[in-house]
Amino acid sequence: MKICRFNENCLGIVQGRTVRDVSVVLGQLKKPTWPPPPGDQFIANLETLLPAMHRLRHKAKVHALRDLSLISPIARPSKIIGAPVNYRAHQAELNEDDEVSPYGAVRNIESYGLFLKSPIPVGPSDGVRLRFENRRTDHEVELAIVIGRECCDASEEDALSYVAGYTIGLDMTIRGTEDRSLRKAVDTHSVLGPWLVTTNEIENSDRLDISLSVNGRRKQHSNTSRMIYSTRKLIAYASSFYTLYPGDVIMSGTPEGVGPVSVGDILECSIERIGSMHVIIRTG
Amino acid sequence: MKICRFNENCLGIVQGRTVRDVSVVLGQLKKPTWPPPPGDQFIANLETLLPAMHRLRHKAKVHALRDLSLISPIARPSKIIGAPVNYRAHQAELNEDDEVSPYGAVRNIESYGLFLKSPIPVGPSDGVRLRFENRRTDHEVELAIVIGRECCDASEEDALSYVAGYTIGLDMTIRGTEDRSLRKAVDTHSVLGPWLVTTNEIENSDRLDISLSVNGRRKQHSNTSRMIYSTRKLIAYASSFYTLYPGDVIMSGTPEGVGPVSVGDILECSIERIGSMHVIIRTG
Repeated sequence: MKICRFNENCLGIVQGRTVRDVSVVLGQLKKPTWPPPPGDQFIANLETLLPAMHRLRHKAKVHALRDLSLISPIARPSKIIGAPVNYRAHQAELNEDDEVSPYGAVRNIESYGLFLKSPIPVGPSDGVRLRFENRRTDHEVELAIVIGRECCDASEEDALSYVAGYTIGLDMTIRGTEDRSLRKAVDTHSVLGPWLVTTNEIENSDRLDISLSVNGRRKQHSNTSRMIYSTRKLIAYASSFYTLYPGDVIMSGTPEGVGPVSVGDILECSIERIGSMHVIIRTG
Repeated sequence: MKICRFNENCLGIVQGRTVRDVSVVLGQLKKPTWPPPPGDQFIANLETLLPAMHRLRHKAKVHALRDLSLISPIARPSKIIGAPVNYRAHQAELNEDDEVSPYGAVRNIESYGLFLKSPIPVGPSDGVRLRFENRRTDHEVELAIVIGRECCDASEEDALSYVAGYTIGLDMTIRGTEDRSLRKAVDTHSVLGPWLVTTNEIENSDRLDISLSVNGRRKQHSNTSRMIYSTRKLIAYASSFYTLYPGDVIMSGTPEGVGPVSVGDILECSIERIGSMHVIIRTG
């Protein structure tokens, strides 16, 4: 199933070029006591809600996809985790670019581990606002893994059983001397979309074509089979440091072809079996 | 006012060696609709709740402080922000320690900016669990600034008006090659406590003695006047990258004297005008 959020907190099921509005199931979410459990409570309850969503869709109001504003399919992740330099060809390009390696040779995820981005994502309809127009800000398209249930010290063997689904992540990245965790944490610089695709529709998340175009010109094109840490390994590794909660997102790293964007650029981000999203670069 | 959380989500006002249980005011917190607003909803509503807490304390049940298990005074920060190398004497000691600078000379906050820790803090009664007993894990005591209301692009002049209060932060840090944002994000490695002290009790957060002892031997001792980025600057700088929400915590960096801990160690963390907390190092 392809599940989107649109307009003002509506919930939809995507079928081709239409969206069926199943927002009414959100009324089934329990209002949490204080303090709320960690994680995104829609994702935490997704398995329970899916049968109702499935039933409802036949009588649901149908919208044309093009008429909707798609917002982040995940509303309240407790963590958005980044996978630094998880493609070797991206490592190679960074090492040829003087502007991006202020501390000597760029290594990869095997040295750097993971990092955290700020936990408020935006969706494709929000667009990216360039907070620092005078600084180089690059596009990085990534497969985003969405955790479905609490996960601590998962084995690689069990790792995929914790996944709720996948979406596309656009990790906008300022270049400079600051920690990745700051340069990639700017408001609106974490875009998720266009929708969440549940795991039953993705046979192998480690064999998906991934690409990004800027104003119609292809800049990034690779396949998730080239990730240094696979989907399983990313989940097991992350959960060896900290507990993952429902709705937590692992952005699995970007392939080669990154480059700076300018106000007015239109990015098209695509991943096989998920879909495509257009994201406009706006002024801050 | 000194506000603590204790036992199973109880709320208390600390007076000397006693705590007055004002948990009943938590019932006034609105149950949020989905998705909830970002940030900690107790802190977001603190100003509204304070008069009721004040009134209630006269008839509140009184506990001896020593009988209570103190949990993190902030339950659900959306972000715990770290200030890397914000004291020059700490920068100097790191540069003399081969184990902690795998990428050459250690710079300071002026180069590194900020980073994010995982957003689930623990309190002093929880203790720290050493997840990687075979890796060096250091104690770092820090002044923790608690944001009281939404804050974006604050000026240094206005910065303090966004503060709800202060608490002590213990930033347990694994040494190694990984990004700070991972080495400092391990479960239980962010301790906050013993309580939140509202701003009216702290005349100048940039002039507070800060210290840490391990098993009764003083290891860290400095004053927040030696921070490279002051309280005002940290808030203004952080909010120039991302919006700060109520309950967000800025851990303002540790002074010199850091060092490894072992299972069974008892850390005493103290900051002038806030108080002291004891934290036990446990096995993972």
